[in-house]
Formats: sequence, C-alpha cells, structure tokens
Amino acid sequence: MSDLEELRKAIVKFTQERDWDQFHNGKDLALALSIEAAELNEAFLWKEVSEVNLEKVKEELADVFNYAILIADKYDLDIRQIVLDKIKRNAEKYPVEKAYGNAKKYNEL
Amino acid sequence: MSDLEELRKAIVKFTQERDWDQFHNGKDLALALSIEAAELNEAFLWKEVSEVNLEKVKEELADVFNYAILIADKYDLDIRQIVLDKIKRNAEKYPVEKAYGNAKKYNEL
Amino acid sequence: MSDLEELRKAIVKFTQERDWDQFHNGKDLALALSIEAAELNEAFLWKEVSEVNLEKVKEELADVFNYAILIADKYDLDIRQIVLDKIKRNAEKYPVEKAYGNAKKYNEL
Amino acid sequence: MSDLEELRKAIVKFTQERDWDQFHNGKDLALALSIEAAELNEAFLWKEVSEVNLEKVKEELADVFNYAILIADKYDLDIRQIVLDKIKRNAEKYPVEKAYGNAKKYNEL
Repeated sequence: MSDLEELRKAIVKFTQERDWDQFHNGKDLALALSIEAAELNEAFLWKEVSEVNLEKVKEELADVFNYAILIADKYDLDIRQIVLDKIKRNAEKYPVEKAYGNAKKYNEL
Repeated sequence: MSDLEELRKAIVKFTQERDWDQFHNGKDLALALSIEAAELNEAFLWKEVSEVNLEKVKEELADVFNYAILIADKYDLDIRQIVLDKIKRNAEKYPVEKAYGNAKKYNEL
Repeated sequence: MSDLEELRKAIVKFTQERDWDQFHNGKDLALALSIEAAELNEAFLWKEVSEVNLEKVKEELADVFNYAILIADKYDLDIRQIVLDKIKRNAEKYPVEKAYGNAKKYNEL
Repeated sequence: MSDLEELRKAIVKFTQERDWDQFHNGKDLALALSIEAAELNEAFLWKEVSEVNLEKVKEELADVFNYAILIADKYDLDIRQIVLDKIKRNAEKYPVEKAYGNAKKYNEL
C-alpha cells in the first residue's frame, strides 16, 4: 500500500470511529485547513526564521496534511496525480529560462 | 519509492531547476501555504458546498500539498511519521466515547 | 478627534508602553492579522451560521481591527481615505446593472 | 458623523445597491475577510519587508476593513467599543512590567 493511501485510511478510520463525517463537508474542511495553516504560521510570528519552534511546526504541519488528505478523500482526488499535474502546469507557467533565480520575477512572471 | 518520496523529489527538482531555494525559508513557505489555503477557500466563498468549483479545488489543493511537502523537506520531517504521531495524540485527546457524533462537543471537548 | 484616530492612538500607546514596536514590521503585522482572521473563522467552524459564538466573534474581530489599524499606522495610511477609494474602484468594477443580485456572477463578473 | 459610521454607511449602501446582502452571512463574511488578509500577506511574500508593494498593501488593507466593518454591521457590534474593550483586556493579560520589550515573552507570557 502506498504511504498516501496508508495515511488516508488512518485518517478516515479516525474520523469514522468518532462519527465526524457529518461535520466534514468540503467547505468546513477547507476552513479547518486554513485555520491549521494559520497556526503553523504562528510558529514563525514575530521571529527570525531561525528562532522557529520546531515542535509546533511538526504538530501544525501534521494538522495541515490531515485536512488536506480529508479534502482529497471527500472529492475522490488522487493526491499523487493532482500534484504531478500541477507541477507540469507550473513548469509551463514558469519556464526555467525566464524564472531562474530572480526574486523579483518569481512573483510577477 | 513511496508516493510521498516521489512527490518530494519532483517538487524539489522543480525548485532547484529554477534556483528558488534561496526564497524558500520556512517562514515564507508557511506564508505561501496559507495563501494557497485561502485560494482553496475561495472555491467555496458565497456558495453552498454543492456549488463548489471542483477544478479550482484540485488546483489549489495541489498547491497546498506542494508547499506542505516543501516545508517538510526544509525541516527534514518524515510526513508519514508526523501524521501518524498526530493521529495517535488526537486519539488520546478525543477518545471515542466522549467525541462520538456530537457537533457541540467536537470543538470544545 | 475622529473615532479611527482615537483607536489608533490607544493602540499605538498600548504598543509603545510595552516596547513592542521592534517586533511590528509590516510583514509580521500582516501575518498577525491573518492569524486573527483565522481565529475569527474558528467561531464558525463545523457550525451553521446561526450557531456562532458571538463572544468569540467580538474578541477576534477586535483583534483584526487592532492589527489592521497598526498596519495603517505603520505605512501612514489614512484608513477613511483608502476605504472610500476602494469603494469607488469597486463601484466601477461591479456596476449595479451587471452585479445586481446574482450569486453566480458575484464572483466572476 | 463619526469616521467609522461614515464608512459603515458607505459600505452598506454599496452592498444594498447590488442586493448582495443575501450572500453576506457571517460565516462567508469571515471567510472573505481571511481571503483578503491572505492577499495582503501576498504583498510581503518572498520579500524583505522593505521591498513591499505599497499599492497592494493599500488595496488589500482596504478590503480587510471593508469585510471587518460588514461583520461588525451584521452583528450590530460597536467597533470603537469592542476595540477599546479588547485593549483593556490585553492590558491585564500583558502587564507592562512583564511584557516590556521581550520578544521571547511577547508570545508566551
């Protein structure tokens, strides 16, 4: 079994044991994901990047994956496939010769 | 090779080809993640959950995974392990007998 | 004194008394604002809109205003002016005859 | 008329002219606020704070105020009062003698 499938199964099992599917519509799952992303950002707030609290990064990043995987499950999306597809589209959008090493262009190509 | 390792390698390769590592400190990666999470939420804004734009969900969820994987890579975190660890801690925090099927308690256990 | 000016003065005084200006660069202030916005959203998570916790809305909305006012202060922006300017631009972008009462178009005009 | 009341009236008028009240439930307004906060953060992404795009800050901060004021209007909250109340509570939570000028404590008092 792939590791993404292993994680999906573990998360879905956790959710079903608690009968939480009923709350897990796509809109609230996306909202929960962005709340966890904000908590991850809190690990960096008012700090130099070197001062980050790594334990908090681990915890909050795990929560981000948790909800991202639940959203993929909700809409029957193949995580591996959508990520590889997006890399392909990004490669067209940001060709190496235009995007290489330029901070200013990175955002505005 | 595991799915997650395959995705990590593809994303890191994409980044290195463009020499974008220099911009990818943990703090900005976390910021980028939460911006993508907001764009995912935009797919649901002012809408019933059934009206969601599924193409946008796919695109933005892929971006969320992209940055989440880059953060894990930046801090040498084993995604499979941190997610399984978090499920374990959540199982202690939300025991089935207390958490089962109760919307009100879901948030305030 | 206008009420926005009264609030700005009270918030700046609070910050200066604690010597927190040193942490309040624009980037971290914007980050703090989006973390407070996420906490405001938490008041609605997994809930029907009618079930919202109004005390939490008050608290988190106050925090949102707090950081938004600090950002305006940091960049010497006249809040009244930038908001009125934006309404004007939005009125051009969303003319009444095209935007009137159409949920689908609301997002895609 | 106070500044805040002037802005509230202008925003509510804009909304009513387009018959957009029907979309403006508290949950979606809070979601819209956090999407605008993310767009504000985008003005700082991958950049030193000094490189910020000030025009984008103005635009997105105005959008943040727009939704924050609509939420206050939705729940009949007196913005001046909730902000002053919060400053008072924060003054108790972060007494000057403990909070003064300490980055580490700023977050963990």
